[in-house]
Amino acid sequence: MVVTRRLQLRTKGHCDMTDITPQLISEVARSGLKDGIVNLFVIGSTAAVTTIEYEPGLEEDFRSFWQRVAPEGPPYNHDLRWNDANGYSHVRASALGPSLTVPFSGGCPILGVWQQVVLVDFDNRPRSREIVLQMVGE
Amino acid sequence: MVVTRRLQLRTKGHCDMTDITPQLISEVARSGLKDGIVNLFVIGSTAAVTTIEYEPGLEEDFRSFWQRVAPEGPPYNHDLRWNDANGYSHVRASALGPSLTVPFSGGCPILGVWQQVVLVDFDNRPRSREIVLQMVGE
Amino acid sequence: MVVTRRLQLRTKGHCDMTDITPQLISEVARSGLKDGIVNLFVIGSTAAVTTIEYEPGLEEDFRSFWQRVAPEGPPYNHDLRWNDANGYSHVRASALGPSLTVPFSGGCPILGVWQQVVLVDFDNRPRSREIVLQMVGE
Repeated sequence: MVVTRRLQLRTKGHCDMTDITPQLISEVARSGLKDGIVNLFVIGSTAAVTTIEYEPGLEEDFRSFWQRVAPEGPPYNHDLRWNDANGYSHVRASALGPSLTVPFSGGCPILGVWQQVVLVDFDNRPRSREIVLQMVGE
Repeated sequence: MVVTRRLQLRTKGHCDMTDITPQLISEVARSGLKDGIVNLFVIGSTAAVTTIEYEPGLEEDFRSFWQRVAPEGPPYNHDLRWNDANGYSHVRASALGPSLTVPFSGGCPILGVWQQVVLVDFDNRPRSREIVLQMVGE
Repeated sequence: MVVTRRLQLRTKGHCDMTDITPQLISEVARSGLKDGIVNLFVIGSTAAVTTIEYEPGLEEDFRSFWQRVAPEGPPYNHDLRWNDANGYSHVRASALGPSLTVPFSGGCPILGVWQQVVLVDFDNRPRSREIVLQMVGE
């Protein structure tokens, strides 16, 4: 059986993180499925999904990491095309990836206590985002 | 229900990107499945799969990113073993990952307008590649 | 049909890699499923899962890569909070990702000859780890 849900949320951009674990838990619970997997997929090319221990220090550390490896500063070829100055956002999003698959059992996602599912918005401005939750199970 | 397809394609290597969105759309459509997920998995240890806004500027930016974080230049221990000089290709492929899972609904993959699914070949020479599309749905 | 298995293993930490391909092959075989996907998900926020050509040279190269992009040295904000000095471990684990999905056919995972599935433990000490194998297929 397949159950599809869509989460809508507003972000601030600039590598901001949104903890979507509560919505994930609630959507799996109300799907009626007991065991299976849930695929989270963010629509768009400047955001990504992963897990992290969600606390402000690590959010800052993660932002510093991306600023080190794919800095906002230097010119990107993408920016010359569209002039929207978010080439670095695209590179980061493609490197981290738009998709995460989480198992669930007994109607509940299996996660560590200190492991939250987050949307990371790498764009250079606030955005409205849509995440598809595709649940496959029984 | 499970439907398996395999894509064969030729790449140039050196971080070249192949847009496989058209094949993905057509294979999901002809699977007969309406709702579910499709797992794309590239066989081999020097290529990876992700999404990106597929345009030449970003392809160049993405290549620069990998040259910055896992440069081709310095000696890699892997190269000492096999003498094939593609240690950097392996590191990049393992960091980006061989696998991507995309939801579909109404027989069509759910993607952003500017979000294409690409194979990135990090190897240091042209290759023949095989990507497994494993569709699970109903 | 969904089949859930859990792997328990001990790691050394410090970016050590454990080849879990043999366990993956054996668990898929004894699930009784012929065709489908298996999602590997590591519980916890300082470890990750990917594929690599599993040999000592590349294990060393992969460690060097992470030391370059997310070095152990500098202070992390996370460390100020918990004083456990593993902020870099969290950043690396979130960048690589806790999850991998592999297709299987004829009761056997589809992988390249030189492509092994590995757990990478980024923590700064030995750990006991649990990986959930969620198989969905028929």
